[in-house]
Amino acid sequence: MSEKRTVFFISDRTGITAETLGHSLLTQFDSFEFNQKTIPFINSVDKARQAVEAIDREASQSGRRPIIFSTTVSDEIRDVLRTSGGLFLDFFDTFIGPLEQELKVRSSHTSGRAHGMTDRAGYQIRIDAMNYALSHDDGITTRSFERADVILMAPSRCGKTPTCLYLAMHHGIFAANYPLTDEDLERARVPEPLVRHERKLYGLTIDPERLHQVRSERRPASRYASPAQCGYEVRQSEALYRREAIPYTDTTSISVEEIATLIIQEKGLQRRFF
Amino acid sequence: MSEKRTVFFISDRTGITAETLGHSLLTQFDSFEFNQKTIPFINSVDKARQAVEAIDREASQSGRRPIIFSTTVSDEIRDVLRTSGGLFLDFFDTFIGPLEQELKVRSSHTSGRAHGMTDRAGYQIRIDAMNYALSHDDGITTRSFERADVILMAPSRCGKTPTCLYLAMHHGIFAANYPLTDEDLERARVPEPLVRHERKLYGLTIDPERLHQVRSERRPASRYASPAQCGYEVRQSEALYRREAIPYTDTTSISVEEIATLIIQEKGLQRRFF
Repeated sequence: MSEKRTVFFISDRTGITAETLGHSLLTQFDSFEFNQKTIPFINSVDKARQAVEAIDREASQSGRRPIIFSTTVSDEIRDVLRTSGGLFLDFFDTFIGPLEQELKVRSSHTSGRAHGMTDRAGYQIRIDAMNYALSHDDGITTRSFERADVILMAPSRCGKTPTCLYLAMHHGIFAANYPLTDEDLERARVPEPLVRHERKLYGLTIDPERLHQVRSERRPASRYASPAQCGYEVRQSEALYRREAIPYTDTTSISVEEIATLIIQEKGLQRRFF
Repeated sequence: MSEKRTVFFISDRTGITAETLGHSLLTQFDSFEFNQKTIPFINSVDKARQAVEAIDREASQSGRRPIIFSTTVSDEIRDVLRTSGGLFLDFFDTFIGPLEQELKVRSSHTSGRAHGMTDRAGYQIRIDAMNYALSHDDGITTRSFERADVILMAPSRCGKTPTCLYLAMHHGIFAANYPLTDEDLERARVPEPLVRHERKLYGLTIDPERLHQVRSERRPASRYASPAQCGYEVRQSEALYRREAIPYTDTTSISVEEIATLIIQEKGLQRRFF
């Protein structure tokens, strides 16, 4: 089954919803390879016609029927997109109906609400949370742990920084970052700067062999990257988490999205926007 | 219309697809307020039963029928979720059928492909791109512009850093960041360190009044935040972009997602993953 289909993600705005939707579905067909193309900002009938031309051109060049995942709010634009030769799956088309019926109201049919800057205050929280994550990366400042919603602690290279940035960018959560030092690991107790913030703590750990690989890319043949040092740090930090009853997760084979979701769930954090 | 409905996002994994999907739809009903709850990791019949209890409890407490956006791959789990009293909109349910027909194959019905770490190499690119964005933030290093896919240039506080991080996190794109200095602005030509990288340049600008507000939060009553200085920097950087034919965009009222999408489109960048 080496048939390579072209998939178009079409949207009147960024295409992020269409991509998320389509990509989730495509992962269910893992014997296929897909050639993925996003056509964003299709917000006029003219642009819709150009998109249809692009789809039909692709179809005749490849001899394969393209698949189209679309999120377009305007009925008029959708009617144009529907005229291409591809399989047309539009997400508003499918779900707006049942929702209108349930809520007993017509939808606004305005485009550009999702992934746009609809709310300046909400948007500002996100930028503030990102700046917070950046300025509190690697424990540079410990004073502002007061403001943190959650403090991620772990040895270096276990995934703290990407997770803090993801929590900030997607949920406006203020996530600080505390790297466990050799001294902290030796004591295997809550480090001094984190005392009084115990309720905010969440630990990360990783498979020592994986940590050795990751650190070796950074500083090959160093003590820092050695299997012995990696093993020691992982053992001691897990001992610390257990002794101090700090919830923690192993990041070896899960994605940043999954780590963030686990933290939000286990710490009962409030998302500041969706 | 102050009816406040509860909306559940339910998933066998993170819930990100269900949230993205559901949120896009809800923005079409802007006279309603929604109380949004995510229940992730519903990967067993038992957990599905607990979710149904939570939904039905909410319904009887509020007296309003909840709305459920679900992305669950397992037919068995979906059949349990369907038994709640809420409006059940499942996204796999709706689209997997037409796709199976089109591709003439049964889908794998495996959960956890989207937003998971399916591919170690792809995942590593993302982490590398994030580390790249972080280590090249604010032009600290100019040596590695070689490796950049795109170099964002702008005065301070126009949105370079969040955009670079977004491009890295979501698309594995290596985005560097060059803050325009007073000297650069005075010359209004491509700055010396960027010569030979002209094809990679993309400029950001912003409304001077908005820049004044943003900078004032950071350093109130400073020269840096003054209307005169903000006006000067915006004028000069736009003059630079125009004179050197550097594509640019105004970030005043668009989101990071929209800026990133524009940059990918206008520079013809390749996403390294979806």
